[in-house]
Amino acid sequence: MTQIAPSTIARLSTTDLQFDARLDALLAWESVSDAGVKQTVETIIADVRARGDAALIEYTARFDHWHPQDAAALELDQERLSAALEAIPSAQREALEAAAERIRAYAEHQRLQSWQFVEADGTVLGQKVSPLDRVGLYVPGGKAAYPSSVLMNALPAKVAGVPELVMVVPTPGGELNELVLAAAAIAGVDRAFALGGAQAVAALAYGTETVPACDKIVGPGNIYVATAKRAVFGQVGIDMVAGPSEILILCDGKTDPDWIAMDLFSQAEHDEDAQSILIAWEAEYLDRVKASIERLLPQMERSEIIAQALSARGALILARDQDEAAEVANRIAPEHLELSVAEPEALAEKIRHAGAIFMGRYTAEALGDYCAGPNHVLPTSRTARFSSPLGVYDFQKRSSLIMASAAGAAALADTASALARGEGLTAHARSAEYRGPGTGEKP
Amino acid sequence: MTQIAPSTIARLSTTDLQFDARLDALLAWESVSDAGVKQTVETIIADVRARGDAALIEYTARFDHWHPQDAAALELDQERLSAALEAIPSAQREALEAAAERIRAYAEHQRLQSWQFVEADGTVLGQKVSPLDRVGLYVPGGKAAYPSSVLMNALPAKVAGVPELVMVVPTPGGELNELVLAAAAIAGVDRAFALGGAQAVAALAYGTETVPACDKIVGPGNIYVATAKRAVFGQVGIDMVAGPSEILILCDGKTDPDWIAMDLFSQAEHDEDAQSILIAWEAEYLDRVKASIERLLPQMERSEIIAQALSARGALILARDQDEAAEVANRIAPEHLELSVAEPEALAEKIRHAGAIFMGRYTAEALGDYCAGPNHVLPTSRTARFSSPLGVYDFQKRSSLIMASAAGAAALADTASALARGEGLTAHARSAEYRGPGTGEKP
Repeated sequence: MTQIAPSTIARLSTTDLQFDARLDALLAWESVSDAGVKQTVETIIADVRARGDAALIEYTARFDHWHPQDAAALELDQERLSAALEAIPSAQREALEAAAERIRAYAEHQRLQSWQFVEADGTVLGQKVSPLDRVGLYVPGGKAAYPSSVLMNALPAKVAGVPELVMVVPTPGGELNELVLAAAAIAGVDRAFALGGAQAVAALAYGTETVPACDKIVGPGNIYVATAKRAVFGQVGIDMVAGPSEILILCDGKTDPDWIAMDLFSQAEHDEDAQSILIAWEAEYLDRVKASIERLLPQMERSEIIAQALSARGALILARDQDEAAEVANRIAPEHLELSVAEPEALAEKIRHAGAIFMGRYTAEALGDYCAGPNHVLPTSRTARFSSPLGVYDFQKRSSLIMASAAGAAALADTASALARGEGLTAHARSAEYRGPGTGEKP
Repeated sequence: MTQIAPSTIARLSTTDLQFDARLDALLAWESVSDAGVKQTVETIIADVRARGDAALIEYTARFDHWHPQDAAALELDQERLSAALEAIPSAQREALEAAAERIRAYAEHQRLQSWQFVEADGTVLGQKVSPLDRVGLYVPGGKAAYPSSVLMNALPAKVAGVPELVMVVPTPGGELNELVLAAAAIAGVDRAFALGGAQAVAALAYGTETVPACDKIVGPGNIYVATAKRAVFGQVGIDMVAGPSEILILCDGKTDPDWIAMDLFSQAEHDEDAQSILIAWEAEYLDRVKASIERLLPQMERSEIIAQALSARGALILARDQDEAAEVANRIAPEHLELSVAEPEALAEKIRHAGAIFMGRYTAEALGDYCAGPNHVLPTSRTARFSSPLGVYDFQKRSSLIMASAAGAAALADTASALARGEGLTAHARSAEYRGPGTGEKP
């Protein structure tokens, strides 16, 4: 196992003169698709729009190194998904089914409901909630093929009532990940295609002879996939374009430091850009966690990635007290926030910005990543300031409802007319005035 | 008044052989910022990030043709907003206040609430809802300065509990729109700046010495503003980038055709790209509406714009029956949908995609544009397939809550460990296993 000194993890204190600037530098992350990637993606999208299936077959041959004999060969039918579910080890199947059950049960709490109310004059106002018609789910292939992501993206859509969920997954060298297909079977994916990259995103956004056009595309992917999603945004809805994964832990110094070290590792092992930060208000506790990191790191299968991530973007931060730690947490607005303290509920009251809050010493982020119930698709890179975990609500949308009674319209017409004339929009004014007092039951 | 023949409004029938293609051509709209606009916007954003207030002053002098003496001169303080409210005609003030009251009352119904539940083993799961900290509101200047837009964008943010709402409005030639400032006073805007264009968006996204950085930017604007909003998306949240406004009317032939003609005009008068479509299932009724259009158009102040919009993007469509009309409506997924029929509630049941549904002959869209209560910021260009009216929920976000009991963590650890090992993420597995059965109350 490669030994990389983990002792380079940054050590900060909120009392440092340069603390704000050092924290900003640590958090800085701007994902920029270079001009070459953008150009490649735009070419692929234009080509798929123009040539449909023929373009999909060519790009699949070129990028995934397998040659589908025709467009129909791109589809993975329900029998194929079921076969994968039958084929995987029963322990894996049971774990997937247990996780799916909890994810589904939690998602049920998120379903938005239509509502309306009637005013005294009989006017009805409300909002009608509908599921999306068809949703595309991108699942990465190769090493980063995570069956848990299939569950987390697919189940909220199905709970929302989306009638048709279309999955795409690249098959580099024609190789399929059986766990991913099994997860798709459990989650109720309706159609699946062995497709990846920008060409898959283009197909989901615009449709081809074989792949149906979707209304929204969700799911993670590499820089080509992310760039393609940004490019088709507007034509279809997309979820957030995710940055590297992050964990922030606030600890009162009473949790076994090995537990905290492993929680930091669990984020850092994703990739070299992942961010693991611990804030405590006892310097001695930071020393103990650092000792745990140094002792445990060499045992880890992914020690090299972990060490690189901790060195590049990790930190152990000393705060003055718990309140100050909460303030720093709000500034960081982390994707994952562990409150490893004696009274996590009181501390959570002080948190305004975090994708998910893991409360108490027993609530390892890893439990939430897989099976606690809440979604593991969460806002990264400080976007928790303004966005939310993926949920059922992302697969529903609202239509406003307005039904004015004759009396209600008469009452509103004066106000609407005055404002419309103030804005110089006289057709608006006259349209309102037709429904104004004195029009009676004319029509 | 210029006379442009309105008779060029397209006449379609769902039985036309080419109906699908003709409808697609009619609906086609792709807003593309050309390379020159993108380059200009990127330069302005980089400059505002680098030089802050100094850049704002220069761009304001260059684009708005007035020279603030310093950055402080850009701010419009609360006294200035109150003075505008005192100065406008009382009829306008009363109309704005009446509209604000109804918009606020409706918005109260949209506020998301936190929720949580406790499982049998004591594990707590839920979602915590918080308002955004600070929101930026872009208000266009000049001719398109609409006080109603100030109310529609600002009030949901304040109902959501956003503590700081920052408005920017350009002042071409140093000229301010008093109605806009009065609406800001009524809506409770916290700070206001006489700024516009891409430089205002950049200031709201990144902050300068004088303008505070916001978490989300909402509000309409020209192509430079829209391009800038797209460019800063990710750094901050944004609302949808809107296309031209649209109305679709479904009518059973029993509404006064003058009313329907005026409703079509009320959309068309916005600008030449606006879209007004009527679907009926009686050819003779379409003739009557066409006659009303021809008779009423010459009377309209904005007849030239209306005629151009109706010629370029309008249509009168004959459907076989009401059910088919509903299907075409779902395909169009219009921003505004009027159901001018005897039983609008039954018909609304068949509508899956629309920004707002105006039900019954009395519910002119214009009533909803100003004062019925629901928001007039709505998804355009078929995005109602996947997105919703602007609402209180756009100014709130969610954090998942997970608090596992010792027993709950022990029960989840096996599942999480099995799935993590299936994905090759052993730090995740070990982090979960620490909380597994047999760990007791160790920490």
